[in-house]
Amino acid sequence: MPATIDPAQPVTTLINVFTVRPERQAELVALLSKATEEVMSGLPGFVSANLHASTDGTRVVNYAQWTSADAMRAMLANPVAQPHMAAAAELAESYEPHLYTVEAVHTQSPS
Amino acid sequence: MPATIDPAQPVTTLINVFTVRPERQAELVALLSKATEEVMSGLPGFVSANLHASTDGTRVVNYAQWTSADAMRAMLANPVAQPHMAAAAELAESYEPHLYTVEAVHTQSPS
Repeated sequence: MPATIDPAQPVTTLINVFTVRPERQAELVALLSKATEEVMSGLPGFVSANLHASTDGTRVVNYAQWTSADAMRAMLANPVAQPHMAAAAELAESYEPHLYTVEAVHTQSPS
Repeated sequence: MPATIDPAQPVTTLINVFTVRPERQAELVALLSKATEEVMSGLPGFVSANLHASTDGTRVVNYAQWTSADAMRAMLANPVAQPHMAAAAELAESYEPHLYTVEAVHTQSPS
């Protein structure tokens, strides 16, 4: 089942929307995926990160979950993670990270 | 488990980022949730929709999945759905919908 969220397990959600030139979109996805695999996923409090490429070529979205906002802030301050984030920022035209709470989950009723 | 995606089931993902005045954020979440529950979730091809409120009060994100881009476009043209989308657009300062493909899924390894 796609994109299910267990309301019983509270998480902090980071949605980071990168604006990117279409010719650099694939490179940005690859860079973020490698950084997540090699660094972020091993840090305390990491839950998941799903990377998305817009079909119009102009956006990359990282939808990431951490066990707490503190765990996510510790990642942002981590000296091993920082060069990867700087490289992503360099590839993108702009980026807009915000922390979110999940307010509602709707799924198709079984038919 | 939060936010898992089954790569074997292809879906079209719509990520719509609304910019909103903080005093209207809760109202926008409630409006989108009601529209999803009462209209969108009953339309052909609806898979799921998760609504998020940014902790800084300035954003609402609808992360929605449909079985195909055609199903999603049919929703956009649906005369019952349109007034709900117009009401959301009216409440928001701006909104930025894009269609996405899921490029990578990273989850914490079981420890």
